[in-house]
Amino acid sequence: MLSKSFLLGSASVFLALVATGTARAEEGMWTFNHLPVSTLQKTYGFAPDAAWIQHVVQSSARLAEGCSASFVSGDGLVMTNHHCANSCLAALSDKTHDYFRNGFYSHSPAEERQCPGMELDRLDNISDVSARVTDATKGTSGAAYTAALQQVESELTKDCVNGDPTHWRCDMVSLFHGGQTALYRYRRYQDVRVVMAPEQGIAFFGGDPDNFSYPRYDIDLSMLRVYDGGKPVHTPFLQFDPMGPKAGELVFTSGNPGRTQRSLPASALAFQRDIVNPAIIGYLSTREGMLWEYSRQSPGHAKEAEDALFSIQNGLKSYSGTQAALRTGDIVARRAKEDAALQSWIDADAGRRKEYGQPFHDIEQAIAVEKTLFPAHLALRMALPGLAEDAMTLVDGASEREKPDAKRHAGYHEAQLGEVETSLGAKEPVYPQLETDTLALGLTLMRQTLGADDELVRTVLGTDSPEALAARLVKGTKLADPAVRVALWKGGQKAVEASSDPMVVFARRIYPAYAQMRERMLNEVTSPLHKAEGDIARAIFARAKAEGHADDIYPDATFSPRLSWGTVKGWTENGKDIPPFTDFAGMYRHATGSDPFELPKRWLDAKSKVDPATHVDFVSTNDIVGGNSGSPVIDRNGHAVGLIFDGNLPSLAGDLYYDISNNRAVSTDTSAIIAALRDVYNEPTLVHELIDGHQATTSGATKP
Amino acid sequence: MLSKSFLLGSASVFLALVATGTARAEEGMWTFNHLPVSTLQKTYGFAPDAAWIQHVVQSSARLAEGCSASFVSGDGLVMTNHHCANSCLAALSDKTHDYFRNGFYSHSPAEERQCPGMELDRLDNISDVSARVTDATKGTSGAAYTAALQQVESELTKDCVNGDPTHWRCDMVSLFHGGQTALYRYRRYQDVRVVMAPEQGIAFFGGDPDNFSYPRYDIDLSMLRVYDGGKPVHTPFLQFDPMGPKAGELVFTSGNPGRTQRSLPASALAFQRDIVNPAIIGYLSTREGMLWEYSRQSPGHAKEAEDALFSIQNGLKSYSGTQAALRTGDIVARRAKEDAALQSWIDADAGRRKEYGQPFHDIEQAIAVEKTLFPAHLALRMALPGLAEDAMTLVDGASEREKPDAKRHAGYHEAQLGEVETSLGAKEPVYPQLETDTLALGLTLMRQTLGADDELVRTVLGTDSPEALAARLVKGTKLADPAVRVALWKGGQKAVEASSDPMVVFARRIYPAYAQMRERMLNEVTSPLHKAEGDIARAIFARAKAEGHADDIYPDATFSPRLSWGTVKGWTENGKDIPPFTDFAGMYRHATGSDPFELPKRWLDAKSKVDPATHVDFVSTNDIVGGNSGSPVIDRNGHAVGLIFDGNLPSLAGDLYYDISNNRAVSTDTSAIIAALRDVYNEPTLVHELIDGHQATTSGATKP
Repeated sequence: MLSKSFLLGSASVFLALVATGTARAEEGMWTFNHLPVSTLQKTYGFAPDAAWIQHVVQSSARLAEGCSASFVSGDGLVMTNHHCANSCLAALSDKTHDYFRNGFYSHSPAEERQCPGMELDRLDNISDVSARVTDATKGTSGAAYTAALQQVESELTKDCVNGDPTHWRCDMVSLFHGGQTALYRYRRYQDVRVVMAPEQGIAFFGGDPDNFSYPRYDIDLSMLRVYDGGKPVHTPFLQFDPMGPKAGELVFTSGNPGRTQRSLPASALAFQRDIVNPAIIGYLSTREGMLWEYSRQSPGHAKEAEDALFSIQNGLKSYSGTQAALRTGDIVARRAKEDAALQSWIDADAGRRKEYGQPFHDIEQAIAVEKTLFPAHLALRMALPGLAEDAMTLVDGASEREKPDAKRHAGYHEAQLGEVETSLGAKEPVYPQLETDTLALGLTLMRQTLGADDELVRTVLGTDSPEALAARLVKGTKLADPAVRVALWKGGQKAVEASSDPMVVFARRIYPAYAQMRERMLNEVTSPLHKAEGDIARAIFARAKAEGHADDIYPDATFSPRLSWGTVKGWTENGKDIPPFTDFAGMYRHATGSDPFELPKRWLDAKSKVDPATHVDFVSTNDIVGGNSGSPVIDRNGHAVGLIFDGNLPSLAGDLYYDISNNRAVSTDTSAIIAALRDVYNEPTLVHELIDGHQATTSGATKP
Repeated sequence: MLSKSFLLGSASVFLALVATGTARAEEGMWTFNHLPVSTLQKTYGFAPDAAWIQHVVQSSARLAEGCSASFVSGDGLVMTNHHCANSCLAALSDKTHDYFRNGFYSHSPAEERQCPGMELDRLDNISDVSARVTDATKGTSGAAYTAALQQVESELTKDCVNGDPTHWRCDMVSLFHGGQTALYRYRRYQDVRVVMAPEQGIAFFGGDPDNFSYPRYDIDLSMLRVYDGGKPVHTPFLQFDPMGPKAGELVFTSGNPGRTQRSLPASALAFQRDIVNPAIIGYLSTREGMLWEYSRQSPGHAKEAEDALFSIQNGLKSYSGTQAALRTGDIVARRAKEDAALQSWIDADAGRRKEYGQPFHDIEQAIAVEKTLFPAHLALRMALPGLAEDAMTLVDGASEREKPDAKRHAGYHEAQLGEVETSLGAKEPVYPQLETDTLALGLTLMRQTLGADDELVRTVLGTDSPEALAARLVKGTKLADPAVRVALWKGGQKAVEASSDPMVVFARRIYPAYAQMRERMLNEVTSPLHKAEGDIARAIFARAKAEGHADDIYPDATFSPRLSWGTVKGWTENGKDIPPFTDFAGMYRHATGSDPFELPKRWLDAKSKVDPATHVDFVSTNDIVGGNSGSPVIDRNGHAVGLIFDGNLPSLAGDLYYDISNNRAVSTDTSAIIAALRDVYNEPTLVHELIDGHQATTSGATKP
């Protein structure tokens, strides 16, 4: 599943290197205002024109929690993945309704239900603010650079939101790692309702064993509707093509790839391979085992842990796949050569030496510091899951809001405060035992990582055992109640300081160490890395220009809107051809009847009704990564022909490099969606809206 | 904890490379018949003479399940680690007696209780059988070599045991990886009783967080007594020194280091680093999380899982430590240079080229095959835990016993059958839910590793889910009863084929794949590797001889008796001096009161009685690895001054190389043992036996 992983929390300051890449065939995640149209025209005999581009931009959307989506009717109907609506379905389910297992079906607008905390953003405008940022940060470095950058970001986003953070959202996006800075303005929607979601059993048919694999038979779909002022919004939308794509067809993807590191220096790749990934994989594996066993205890526990287990297993496959590529491929050695070549190019000229310096050396130095900080940094994240993280957000947010906007850390600027409050107020259920076990395990792993006599461990645990501390905190805290969290947030520093809630007391106790770690990471690691990567990016730019191929360069992914393209095409694995399409016949064959290879009853009942030759899923060469989940697959006509939901196993190294020989995006075919709605779920109204582009009743009512 | 890891089961055919090393100061695990006495004399002004050596050999012992031990009285009293008696204490505990938590104390011979399945072996004789083996395998390779080797092993061990496998055990030991072969004959004891074991809370004080760390405060002791014909045996023994060693003192270790790979070619190290270790660490991490959560469910569950969790966490630290060394050190690059140098030495001479060939190339080829087999091989191990493994032993053993002795696989030769039967008949408790969960997780991870459509996965699971299959097998099987296992074993092929026990049926279904995997691993991986390593070992030998330093060479560890030495000495870590000794004052300071930093009540009560300055643990430069657990630390006089129980974190890379700057063995001081028995446990009889060397009553009765 390709939703962008926030596994290590929003406050994570993990190595966030982004740099530049040089495009090869079908490689690249391009910004909408800088598409290599002439290359496209040359290669495919087709290039999108301005109207096509604008239509696609305005029909596309981003889900704030890490997915992509598209409008598929003029009445606010949105198509995204089932797994992008997980937390919504979990939140809406209760003792008598398991929407996750049984699906969610509304048969009238009144039955559409709001997804707690869900936000959808639609791109409105991109402006280049590079000059402004360069001016503001000129001559600064380290902490001063960070402060200057924060100051200008705060000013820019505040101006951009223009006093209306409820309807607008503005993100400063650093492209080419500081080589360019853009301000992305989004129309913000916070009333998103679920219209239809099939059973988890078909959306994630094959479960974790099939995840990131292919052939595949998933209808990873959910339908949402966006409301504003209590009414469905009306926007441009992608016409739904009920036939799906053809083999060999050129298809586009409009989505929000989360993060790539396509030009990461070899030293940073080696750091990930040798230190970061093994530690995170170990952590995720232990969590997987814990959640697996928790789920075994009762059907209730299985339901409680389902979401977390899903997310952990997904992250685990993703990290493991990347790590496998790093370990077994020659990418690190290749990158070392590229790094050396760029440094030689810099060194060959006095002007360049002055302009770009020794960025690879600088990066090595920053990584040397990060090596010493990493264990404690990871341990802090492990010690703050769930409500403990919320408590830390309350303590941190209260403290940050005491500062002038410009001095605050990212995430706490005035324009971002609404988002924090929404997130704190989200009505996601808290399960006391799962919460306790998760915290206890996190604290145990923290101690395992740092040792019992470590000062931070002593600060966190005192003389308690992880189990006793976790039990005491979860039992005593009132933070499980969203209203209590919001009240503390609103109460600010005074309320947080006065609180005797044990979880808040706990967060206060850790806060100095937490804040100090963030400062050190920012000033000694992130900022120097950022600067050196900027130098590298600018050097790559300058070199590409000098060598006449500047147009072939695309920026690393930044969870902002991008276009990629490719062809519907299988691949060859160990000498075996993997065909591009699967069909319903294959799906029924794949069903052994045992979880997770058990089809939902509706599908078994409908077997005679669906055409066995109808395509279910397909693969294409589109260059996508996590964050692209829910992206529409679009044909030349600008019509929706598929719904991205995964990549194959080799694509997991896509964070680091794109390999056309085996990197494939996996999509649900629009023909499968239509067949499901029509033949399995008996949803003629929804089929009608998709084909017509408008709600039957609404359009009838509003038509003259 | 340094007990030899059998995590992946006795049938494991994992890469078992052993080669040769060149000794540096205090490095080496030397065979008793080839000690570098002149080097010792030169370095320390002391070398053991023949009497000293014989005395130490005859006072030392090996526990068949992977530990070392020593006789510390003339009446069969044996000192080993608490963690070496874990399974015994678990087996003896019942609803009303938790010997693990509360300790085990006998106050008369009648109260000493037999440890189910425990076997102790005392070295009787070593004979060189190199010529016999070389003759028998001459001119063979691949399957023929394997068969020839098995044939000669079968003949040699059969002759050696001389029809009395109850009292004798003979192991063919391949030293210098086939460069030499020795036959080790042991006096075998199968009536081992527990005399005294302190609480787990002091034996493993600091638990997993402190494991492999230092400073440390553990009294990792158990006292056993060996009986023969219902009476305590009388053997030579190590006089117990109640004062412990001094800083800087020369000390020896007599024990059974399990396995080292000190001259593993770079290609094999890289294979471990890139493929094997990450997979095993992932597996162990998931198991850790599962067992951790299982333990959280109730005190009963915690007790059920304690042993397994202990063993998994221990293995996890051990693999992770080795992996950290492989990832961050330059050992692979260094080894590649050494490999190239040896190949150059071979290539420089036509005679050598003919004699040794291209072993590094051969190893690379074997590893290329192993790469393709490894996932399924690991998956098979994961799918066969606990009773499923027993069932496979029954099916496999029945089939193997149909063959003539010489054609059987290792483990099933006539002389070894008693051991298999003992192991199958051991009365270790089976906990149905833990058994089910463990099997279900193993099957799940198998499917995760190979994919749902894999043929082996289909064979193992059929159309069942892992959970349903595991539940059905564990619920239906009668194998939890040792008598049922033994009856099936004794019934042989006929009984096994006729059995409708679902676990046996399950094992029969997998057996063809299992046997085929073993054949392929043996013929295409293990045998060619073994041959190439033999070539390398002989080349290293020949080169060392030619260059005049053949005496500085010791063989890799083979879980057979070895002597190592070193000095009692701390080390420096991040510029901080770690002193060699800890004391009771430090122990009481380390006790936060929370598990696992909670001292048992007896220790809290005895605080005023114990001398705070008494040493608890110490570190020394002795070169030890897993399997050395329970080894005595011996002074020049041949007296016991300590009890090895662990290594520090840097020592975890000791499998691959020894680094005197930070590799340290961790021991319990004999002064702490005496203080514990005298001041805490009030065991004057035992103290008396240790000081006197004889049981008070027995010696009184048998004295003239």
